Parts: sequence; C-alpha cells; structure tokens
Amino acid sequence: MLPFARVTIVGLGLIGSSVARAVMQAMPTVRVTGYDADAGVRETADRLQICHDVADSAGAAVIDADLVILCVPVGAMGAVAAEFAADLPADAIVSDVGSCKAEVARALSAALPGATVIPAHPVAGTERSGPEAGFATLFKHRWCIVTPPEGADAAAVERVSEFWRRLGAEVETMAPEHHDRVLAVTSHLPHLIAYTIVGTASDLEEVTQSEVIKYSAGGFRDFTRIAASDPTMWRDVFLTNREAVLEMLQRFSEDLSHLQRAIRWGDGDALFDLFTRTRAVRRSIVEQGQDDDAPDFGRTHE
Amino acid sequence: MLPFARVTIVGLGLIGSSVARAVMQAMPTVRVTGYDADAGVRETADRLQICHDVADSAGAAVIDADLVILCVPVGAMGAVAAEFAADLPADAIVSDVGSCKAEVARALSAALPGATVIPAHPVAGTERSGPEAGFATLFKHRWCIVTPPEGADAAAVERVSEFWRRLGAEVETMAPEHHDRVLAVTSHLPHLIAYTIVGTASDLEEVTQSEVIKYSAGGFRDFTRIAASDPTMWRDVFLTNREAVLEMLQRFSEDLSHLQRAIRWGDGDALFDLFTRTRAVRRSIVEQGQDDDAPDFGRTHE
Repeated sequence: MLPFARVTIVGLGLIGSSVARAVMQAMPTVRVTGYDADAGVRETADRLQICHDVADSAGAAVIDADLVILCVPVGAMGAVAAEFAADLPADAIVSDVGSCKAEVARALSAALPGATVIPAHPVAGTERSGPEAGFATLFKHRWCIVTPPEGADAAAVERVSEFWRRLGAEVETMAPEHHDRVLAVTSHLPHLIAYTIVGTASDLEEVTQSEVIKYSAGGFRDFTRIAASDPTMWRDVFLTNREAVLEMLQRFSEDLSHLQRAIRWGDGDALFDLFTRTRAVRRSIVEQGQDDDAPDFGRTHE
Repeated sequence: MLPFARVTIVGLGLIGSSVARAVMQAMPTVRVTGYDADAGVRETADRLQICHDVADSAGAAVIDADLVILCVPVGAMGAVAAEFAADLPADAIVSDVGSCKAEVARALSAALPGATVIPAHPVAGTERSGPEAGFATLFKHRWCIVTPPEGADAAAVERVSEFWRRLGAEVETMAPEHHDRVLAVTSHLPHLIAYTIVGTASDLEEVTQSEVIKYSAGGFRDFTRIAASDPTMWRDVFLTNREAVLEMLQRFSEDLSHLQRAIRWGDGDALFDLFTRTRAVRRSIVEQGQDDDAPDFGRTHE
C-alpha cells in the first residue's frame, strides 16, 4: 500500500525538485504536483517534467493533495503555509524538509490550525541550488528525521515515515528540540565555520585571493564546498536555530582557544592526542556508510 | 634532458611513496632509491616495488644520488639530514616536500653545511598515510611551490622545478616566509579548524557520538576527512609554522565573533552578504581546476 496517492511539493529548489523526482521514480502511480513562488522556477520544473503538474498558486497546488511537503527556506514556512491554508483538504498531512524543527513546527501549527502537521528533515543535500540541481537518488541511504509534535497521530507519523523509506531513506524519530541540538553540531556549526574561514581567507591583504584559490588543494577547498550552499536557506537556519547554534559555537570557540594555547606553548602531545582521536571519528563515519571510503572523497587525480 | 638520473627518496609514506611511483612512471630511466626509518615501511615498499632499491640506512640511500628528497614530518627534517650528511655526494641537490618552508630551510642548511638545498612543497595529499596510500598521479595538475634560499643557484632551482613538472605539477617560486603565510591560510588553518570541530562534536554529552556519526551528511563529514590526516605530520606543522598559524587563527576568531554577534542580534543581511560572497570563491576554485566540478565532490548517491 502506498502511503499517499497525491503529493504536492511546495518549493522546487534542490530539495523539492529531488523529492519530486524521487517520488516519480519510486512511486510512479502517485500524482505529483509542484508549486514555486518563482515563475522562472515553475517554468523550469515544467520544462524538465519534474512532476506531473506545476500549479500557478499554492492554493491550487494543494487542493486535492493527501500529502503536502514544504521545501522552502525555514524562514518562509509560516507565510507559505498561510497562503494555502484555506485550500488545504481536511484530511491532508502537511510535512516539510526544513533544517530546524522546533520553530518550523510552531510556524506551521500557527498558520494551519487544526491541520495534521508532521515535520521531517532529510539529512541530505549538495552545494547546488535550484530545480536543475535536484536528482532522484539524493535521499538514498541518508537519514530522514521525523519530528512529530506531542500527541501526534501514530498512523500519520507512520505514513510520513513510510514515504521517506520509499525514497530510499532510513527514518529516525526524534523530539524537535533534540533534533535542533543534534543538527546544530552536525550541520549548522560546520556550515557557519566554513562560511567564516572562506570569508577570512578572502579578506587577507598580503595573501592574494588568487593565491588562496591556487593553493586551495592543501585543505581549504574542502571548506569552500559547503560555503557555496544556498545563502537564503542558511541565513534562515542560523536565525531560526539561534540558541543551539550559539551554544555549540561557544563550545567550539573554547576548544579552539585550547588548541591555540597548545600551539603557542609548543604542547605537541596535546595536538597529537586530539589528531589521533579525530581520525577514529572519520573511520566510524565511513564504516557506517555515511561517507565514501575512497580517499580524498574519491576526487579524480588525472 | 632529464633533470636528474639518480633520485633518492627519504621517507616512504603517502607523499614519499607517491613521488617514487610518479618518478618510476614519468621518468622510467631514472634510478629510484628509497629509505624509511621504519623497517616495516621499508619491507612494504620493497614488496610493492615502489622504487628500484630500498636502502637499509639513510647514508647508503643517498650515496650516489644526484637528487635527495626528504619526505618526512617537518619536525624530523634536520635530524634525518644529519644522518646522511657524511654520505651526501658534493654535487647532489637536496630538496623536501614539507608544508613549512622557512624553518625547514634553516634546519636543512644547518644539518648540511655547504650542500645545495632547494626546498619545495607540492600542495597535494589525501587523508591516508603510509606507503600503500601513495599513487603516481597525486601531483597531476596540483601546484608545487619551490622556495629557493637567497642567492640559490638558478640552474639547481630550474632542475628541481623541471623535476616537478615532469610529475605533472605546475611550479611556482616563492620566498619561504611568504609560502608559510599563504599555506597557513589555505592549508594549516583549515586543518586546525577541522580537527577542532571534530573534537568538539565528540565531546558533547547530550548529543551522542552515534548521533554525530549518523547525521554527519549534513556537513560535518566534510570536516572529518581532513581531520583524519596524519597526526605526526600535522603536530609538526603547527609547532613549526606557529607564528603564521596563530596570526591567521586570530583573524578567523575575530570573523567568527562577528558572525556570532550577527546571529545573536538577528542581522540576516550580514549573514546573507557573507554567504553570497563565499559562493563566488568556490566558483573560482572549480574554474581554475583546483577542485572537481561535480556536486558534493562527486560522491556517489546510489
């Protein structure tokens, strides 16, 4: 039994267009409708045949859906939901793919009183944006975290979970507040730090921008990938998950000061111990299939 | 005309064994001798036929070389050079692959009075270590920075440069002090930050290690790759290039505080502006062939 028959995707960027493609591939009998506030994106989605229909308004898009998934920046969730609130079928389930769950749950419940809202977050993506960047296999072997509100209907939670499993994801359930703290460290803090160091390197006077780019293979280029992620999406993430991000950032800064002191005082053992410990973390990530085993991310060397 | 006829490589880890393999492939008539202080590494190098000969001592390895390349951690350069100083032919050129140039140049000149020392740094590597991790194409399309001492013999500099070009690298010449500042930002600071954040994430109490690993695809896993690099090599880099690293770290910390303040005060425009600027840096790196164009580093999604 398919968990849903008529799925509407609101927001057709990297994630939304990947969800659409994945549904078309994994559940070909499901009717997929898409909508995006940007007319150019709607045209592209139509041309690429990412879904069966591209609607001209959010209301028209949801009118006969049994699942609506919001794939817009987390700061826009409430406003977009309000746009289609009047047209939402009473038995439809509303979900989303946002990177912060507590605040999004609040925004969606406020905009859609009485609706069944089951937020979720597929932990997957690339540094690209837009409908052309999406692909059907993006969620394969990645985790999708479902964060049902307290007292949520168990059958609705199961249908959303099954939906993600059909797209190839593994599903975990979590309280929204815990999700926000976990992702603050595994996703938000890394992005913040990558954005910062790329900015720092661009602002130097004596080392030129061109030198930074030429010699980036020494490690810097690894950071530029995630620092090329969508600016609007990430601005919203930091503003929305502020408390958890600030706390993780505080811990990171303390640890960095500790290392700075070890370098200043020539404490080689402290450095060596940490560098040995971090190596083991990488090993676990590869062993658990959360990254490729190939050295250098499998980059080509020809 | 080949720049050298008999090349000796001292230190047969990732880089040394890659140099050996690359020479065997690119200049098959050149005699390649290897040496490593670790008997197990010597055995592996012998078994894998990474070079023509594996010598039993540093002195025996260099005795008829016209180029000796030191591929050991930067903190070990002086001691290793002292080991073979008495056996070094008068007309041999000594070079190295170390990540810090000013301090290594001083150590090599002190250990080898009167020798022709032309330090160099191929900006290439992976997170793997040891003789089995090396491969012949590691230096293709990467930069090699040659840092001749003041008054160095131009012909010797050209021979070392030509050697690296034959291995597929592009060569740039630079003063050692400038090299150390450039690499502090493009390589040393990124490694330091990656090591720190992986350490921070491992030390959390409420977010478990297993959660950090499971949800690492949100960005964290990108950092774990370079935080899996060789601990001895990197301890030495930070202790050796201390002043430049501490200065770049200071700038980074200031920029991070600035961003922290923007998050605390909800200054979305400051975040958005930086995130847009950093995207352009990535674009330049890809355009200049210093990283693959494929999204997500070309990781597989199947």
